[in-house]
Amino acid sequence: MPTLEFFYDFVSPYSYLASTRIEAEAARVGATVRYRPFLLGGVFNATGNRAPIDTAAKAAHLATDLGRWARRLGVPFAWPAKFPISTVLAMRTAFAAERARKLVPFTDAMFRAYWAQGRDISDPAVVQDVGNGLGLDGAALVAEAGNHKEALKAQTQEAVDRGSYGAPTFFVGPEMFIGNDRLDFALEALASAGKS
Amino acid sequence: MPTLEFFYDFVSPYSYLASTRIEAEAARVGATVRYRPFLLGGVFNATGNRAPIDTAAKAAHLATDLGRWARRLGVPFAWPAKFPISTVLAMRTAFAAERARKLVPFTDAMFRAYWAQGRDISDPAVVQDVGNGLGLDGAALVAEAGNHKEALKAQTQEAVDRGSYGAPTFFVGPEMFIGNDRLDFALEALASAGKS
Repeated sequence: MPTLEFFYDFVSPYSYLASTRIEAEAARVGATVRYRPFLLGGVFNATGNRAPIDTAAKAAHLATDLGRWARRLGVPFAWPAKFPISTVLAMRTAFAAERARKLVPFTDAMFRAYWAQGRDISDPAVVQDVGNGLGLDGAALVAEAGNHKEALKAQTQEAVDRGSYGAPTFFVGPEMFIGNDRLDFALEALASAGKS
Repeated sequence: MPTLEFFYDFVSPYSYLASTRIEAEAARVGATVRYRPFLLGGVFNATGNRAPIDTAAKAAHLATDLGRWARRLGVPFAWPAKFPISTVLAMRTAFAAERARKLVPFTDAMFRAYWAQGRDISDPAVVQDVGNGLGLDGAALVAEAGNHKEALKAQTQEAVDRGSYGAPTFFVGPEMFIGNDRLDFALEALASAGKS
């Protein structure tokens, strides 16, 4: 079965948009999704790329563009009170959730917490609460995050080494696709891979 | 009849991609296209935004992404030998072509010359030849370009003042859409405008 690799960071609103439909869309073309949390700030540092909000005119247009996408996809979207935030703890905790075999629901819940509910997911208490909501021991999950520093670094570096410069980044085998607005191209590649 | 404003620069490959279908797509939703040549370099200078090729990882991926789009749209695409180039003369000449009521065919021919045929459209002889090919006096057209310095500056500044930071930029009334990959959103807005 072909695999769609999904590199994402909770701070990236376009990653959130992709996350809301990636499982269903991949299933439609007979593919599975491999969730690969990474640190977008690390990607920017490594590549010299910049966040949209670092260019004033882009920043001014960002919420408009995101709002259009959210309406099209029929998903909730609200600009969080705190943006950007550090997602270092949150992304490390994703690795802890992966060990607990809860990476997908944790990812969905964290994206929703930040991009639909506006919660401050840089706060360990919020991350803990999200974990509790999934039936995990949230405090233990957050405590374990520190064990995954190197894993997060390595996954980020892998994405950079393979050519990533932003989020979300998708791979279908060696083929890279960057941006929520390129998910359809990745799905086409998966559909072709499934046929061959 | 609703109008789709189309700000573009011949140096922008995503503007080329949009140009190949904008007339047909606008007609489909009962709208007309207003062609508005501008200078992308001027937009970058004014906004601090950068071209994709100014970030190495983006530059490395650019031809792949463009090739996918060209295949999807079924249009010819070849990376030009000379890129980037100055399009100051070419964009000024577009204003001369507009006075001759040939802006649309001139735009199509210039995009094709650069992005399908790889011709160096920074060369006045090439611009002249493109003009001749449209049944115009190419030499006179290029000579007239110098009269449109201020018009090109003003049109560029207008786009910046309205929020543009890249190319292509579309407007449907006050609503702005940036990127070939946002043309479908602009078309949806036009379709809604046509109904109201």
